[in-house]
Amino acid sequence: MDVKIAPSILGADFGNLERDIKKVEECRVEMLHIDVMDGNFVPNIAFGPDQIKMLRGKTDLFFDVHLMIQNPDLLIPRFAEAGADMIVVHQEATVHLHRTLKLIQSFGVKAGVSLTPATSLETLRYVLDEVDMVLLMTVNPGYGGQSFIPACYDKIRDLKKMIAHRPIDIQVDGGINLETAKKAVAAGANVLVAGSFTFKGDVAENIRNLRETARI
Amino acid sequence: MDVKIAPSILGADFGNLERDIKKVEECRVEMLHIDVMDGNFVPNIAFGPDQIKMLRGKTDLFFDVHLMIQNPDLLIPRFAEAGADMIVVHQEATVHLHRTLKLIQSFGVKAGVSLTPATSLETLRYVLDEVDMVLLMTVNPGYGGQSFIPACYDKIRDLKKMIAHRPIDIQVDGGINLETAKKAVAAGANVLVAGSFTFKGDVAENIRNLRETARI
Amino acid sequence: MDVKIAPSILGADFGNLERDIKKVEECRVEMLHIDVMDGNFVPNIAFGPDQIKMLRGKTDLFFDVHLMIQNPDLLIPRFAEAGADMIVVHQEATVHLHRTLKLIQSFGVKAGVSLTPATSLETLRYVLDEVDMVLLMTVNPGYGGQSFIPACYDKIRDLKKMIAHRPIDIQVDGGINLETAKKAVAAGANVLVAGSFTFKGDVAENIRNLRETARI
Amino acid sequence: MDVKIAPSILGADFGNLERDIKKVEECRVEMLHIDVMDGNFVPNIAFGPDQIKMLRGKTDLFFDVHLMIQNPDLLIPRFAEAGADMIVVHQEATVHLHRTLKLIQSFGVKAGVSLTPATSLETLRYVLDEVDMVLLMTVNPGYGGQSFIPACYDKIRDLKKMIAHRPIDIQVDGGINLETAKKAVAAGANVLVAGSFTFKGDVAENIRNLRETARI
Amino acid sequence: MDVKIAPSILGADFGNLERDIKKVEECRVEMLHIDVMDGNFVPNIAFGPDQIKMLRGKTDLFFDVHLMIQNPDLLIPRFAEAGADMIVVHQEATVHLHRTLKLIQSFGVKAGVSLTPATSLETLRYVLDEVDMVLLMTVNPGYGGQSFIPACYDKIRDLKKMIAHRPIDIQVDGGINLETAKKAVAAGANVLVAGSFTFKGDVAENIRNLRETARI
Amino acid sequence: MDVKIAPSILGADFGNLERDIKKVEECRVEMLHIDVMDGNFVPNIAFGPDQIKMLRGKTDLFFDVHLMIQNPDLLIPRFAEAGADMIVVHQEATVHLHRTLKLIQSFGVKAGVSLTPATSLETLRYVLDEVDMVLLMTVNPGYGGQSFIPACYDKIRDLKKMIAHRPIDIQVDGGINLETAKKAVAAGANVLVAGSFTFKGDVAENIRNLRETARI
Repeated sequence: MDVKIAPSILGADFGNLERDIKKVEECRVEMLHIDVMDGNFVPNIAFGPDQIKMLRGKTDLFFDVHLMIQNPDLLIPRFAEAGADMIVVHQEATVHLHRTLKLIQSFGVKAGVSLTPATSLETLRYVLDEVDMVLLMTVNPGYGGQSFIPACYDKIRDLKKMIAHRPIDIQVDGGINLETAKKAVAAGANVLVAGSFTFKGDVAENIRNLRETARI
Repeated sequence: MDVKIAPSILGADFGNLERDIKKVEECRVEMLHIDVMDGNFVPNIAFGPDQIKMLRGKTDLFFDVHLMIQNPDLLIPRFAEAGADMIVVHQEATVHLHRTLKLIQSFGVKAGVSLTPATSLETLRYVLDEVDMVLLMTVNPGYGGQSFIPACYDKIRDLKKMIAHRPIDIQVDGGINLETAKKAVAAGANVLVAGSFTFKGDVAENIRNLRETARI
Repeated sequence: MDVKIAPSILGADFGNLERDIKKVEECRVEMLHIDVMDGNFVPNIAFGPDQIKMLRGKTDLFFDVHLMIQNPDLLIPRFAEAGADMIVVHQEATVHLHRTLKLIQSFGVKAGVSLTPATSLETLRYVLDEVDMVLLMTVNPGYGGQSFIPACYDKIRDLKKMIAHRPIDIQVDGGINLETAKKAVAAGANVLVAGSFTFKGDVAENIRNLRETARI
Repeated sequence: MDVKIAPSILGADFGNLERDIKKVEECRVEMLHIDVMDGNFVPNIAFGPDQIKMLRGKTDLFFDVHLMIQNPDLLIPRFAEAGADMIVVHQEATVHLHRTLKLIQSFGVKAGVSLTPATSLETLRYVLDEVDMVLLMTVNPGYGGQSFIPACYDKIRDLKKMIAHRPIDIQVDGGINLETAKKAVAAGANVLVAGSFTFKGDVAENIRNLRETARI
Repeated sequence: MDVKIAPSILGADFGNLERDIKKVEECRVEMLHIDVMDGNFVPNIAFGPDQIKMLRGKTDLFFDVHLMIQNPDLLIPRFAEAGADMIVVHQEATVHLHRTLKLIQSFGVKAGVSLTPATSLETLRYVLDEVDMVLLMTVNPGYGGQSFIPACYDKIRDLKKMIAHRPIDIQVDGGINLETAKKAVAAGANVLVAGSFTFKGDVAENIRNLRETARI
Repeated sequence: MDVKIAPSILGADFGNLERDIKKVEECRVEMLHIDVMDGNFVPNIAFGPDQIKMLRGKTDLFFDVHLMIQNPDLLIPRFAEAGADMIVVHQEATVHLHRTLKLIQSFGVKAGVSLTPATSLETLRYVLDEVDMVLLMTVNPGYGGQSFIPACYDKIRDLKKMIAHRPIDIQVDGGINLETAKKAVAAGANVLVAGSFTFKGDVAENIRNLRETARI
């Protein structure tokens, strides 16, 4: 099975995003991972619908928009309108998770759920019918300088079992490098988010290395 | 008296910020206005300390950072560290406004206060000793497509009287064009934020026009 | 000057609202006052858009909807759609009061602002252009068994002066009876909300008495 | 086993509640389901303790009060005093669920817990000793126009197993019609909430049909 | 006019409060100032009703309880029951200030309002009838190591004018020493809170010095 | 196996803490349990970092600080600096539990997690690597006058199984007396918090009794 690569815009050069996006576009990555942070759900702020709309005019890449925000329902319509192809919300950020997923789908956008490293997989049991992708955070979102948390390998395995034969992608985000990617894929992940790993040095080579290492 | 021009980064091309910042830098604008929104204090999200840090490496422009965020104290240290030269907080976003201003100053950064269009100037009476700039929002922050609210001309005049001879800048933000700029400056404003007005068409000409019109 | 009478639905028989509304309709009251409470802005809960929609089908009375709720922007569209003719929000419940008033008006609905007894009139100074009515609470909203607070007579007078010649109604709500109504009108109020006073005993006589007493 | 029928007041004619309540009273339904919404836990508002108190004077029906509100502890005393026979709180709305249930019981009122469609049953494991009824929401509470969510049939079955031989009712609410009722009861539910289904057309016939269909 | 002295418990030896309270009791201070902090309204936590109740059993001093807490209504009953003689709430911490003051009075306890250094005096205009004392914070509450903020002298004078001939005490808290006390009293304050000043060194001498210096 | 005894400071004489702490120090208890409450996570307030710092100067006892507060991350640095040896946070009080535990450890302090009686053990599954102690609340924290909740014995057993052979302490807090202590230890607990039980009457005898009874 081939994994999908999702370069994270957080790793690109903020002053020259168009240039960096073109680079990963040429490498035919499967999606562009766009992090949205509100300074409330996570202790950092980054990007909103207006920025995504501007990028939408510059590329046809699949936009995988990760909402690290409280009460996502309020802004989901604007992210959909801005050009998101998939919107991923945090289970911990909404009381009405099922409703939030249906709201995303009502705009013709794919729906994902993300869990912080500590959150139980039990929180997903009754919404699997509505989920296109589960994003397991493998570091704590919104904080810098962290490494892949080892307990997440077990969590990936547990999730893989839980989703059984449903066509749900398992994405991992945080501390991805050649070594952690290999182990995460072995455990069951099939979508890799990579930020600084992608954009430091030669982008094409980085992505090629990631693809090869992660091939099972 | 000459006014100061503060192009807002929200009006620049998000995919090519470095290029657009260079343009206004060449026009010797007095500062770059950077909007930070958290999706909570205002219904929109945009930019955080990491993005500002990246831009800091590309220009020496004075960074005037406008925090449209709830509980700014938590993130002020990170914005200071990222390279802000002035941090402007909203009166409505903090219970301890005096403390918040002192916190900003403790990092060697200039301190400003912003008011939404409806907020009373009385809220500023006992903090004027700690303020380098007052930002009067002349549209409602975080919402799109609005025009300069006429009641703000009176508010600028009232503020001008209130600050008396203190060396405090009066900045206006929202719906600035040649006509509103002229009237705002006549009422007492001396710093003009201009986003789409600055970056649509010929940047140098736009800024020149704004300077000339606003000269009293 | 004749005052306007606004019977409050809270004083009617909840099991037979249609019957009670017909009664005040026959007395040609100027509006029906509908209280909305969220258990958060005030420590009580009552009525939402669905209930107003149901009543809308049963009468042509002008619906004056008083939102005692936090963050009214989220529900304003639904109250407008449900058939409100005027929506009154609390200054204390929204950071962006000017925006909230414009949002109400965008639905073709009249806009009002309400203040709790303690709130300063200074909070209204820069939004008077956007206000059709100011509702001064003369008891604390959401709590039972209170009398008209005497300090409110001065507040009515101060407001009357502040609005000068603008066509803004001054509504009072709380503890209205023949005596307090007379004094409130003398101070400058011209719209009287009356709940239990209206519906206890003979509705027609109660309203007639109120009109006569309040005539200046 | 016979199911219990709980007509929801939300489906009745809001202008003539006394009349509609008499209708279901004559059909000897087991309880009247009263929805309380705060515009915060759910995006809608409806009914509070004062309304329930008014209805209490008009009927002897068992009042099953479903609190779709944040921090229910603050208002539980008032709902108990207003005449509730059972108070059902949401697991997602309180940090101290065990305490909240004991608080309800301290007023001599039966205690229930409700879960939104996405919430894990694991959240109930250590409070089953204190629960008279579990209300599984089979649509997302507070939103209109939804159908019974199919994943809830499994959830009913899982809950049935979890409660084992404890005398706990399993109530379902949302999208109930003859077809969904039959399947929900087959899965283990024994209390059916029905709003519009009950009150559209001939109330007596609707209830009779529901009873017959749901009989196992 | 003689000033009243209010030693703050925060300055006493936390391991030997009974001993330190006896010391100030012997100096016949007019009240004991007890700071309550919730970690939410201010970034610090200290003391609740149970601690006050314990101290109540050990002294007859007048307890002046300063609630630096959000939503004080919830805990006011418990502080009254614990033995507070006066309860002071923050204007910024409650939407329904008038109601909060009446709630305090309903327990037979005196009621005060406190303002942070930045808060406008306009917020007090319509509640002066219900206030026994206004506490002007002269440093930012909940933060350590601050000096008396000079802008507060003007604020004391403005308040003195505003209360006119009403029998309302003006208390100041923060950075009180012999110099600031003298100036604050000259401006119109008549109750001085002193924490570390009181308890460092010879308590009796400190209090005697404060009394003498502050005498006008 | 010997159990560890953790007298709770809440049971000591608040006016003479130094004296009472000396008493338990002489009994060689393994730790002093210090309760921190914020009036928000729990409906009570007690003690903050400044109080702990003062006690730190008076004893070498191991300080086990139980944070019953919302958003603990903000204050953790101050509790660490004040002299805590272990900091225990509530799973229900933080979205980023893994991060919070790492933050505690970053100060060289041991990290614990506490669960209210209703909270599922599933919430701990993916953080066990970072936990030195789990505190199972056996009454609802912050409320008075409660007895040990029987369902907690099963919960202790389930936790014991879940942690398997990891070196994690299981602490119980609430309603501990000779009888409940015996059963809790039999179920798997090895750290007993005892407040009023410890300090009522003869402290040394109380602790001796608790140790003997709890020995397995």
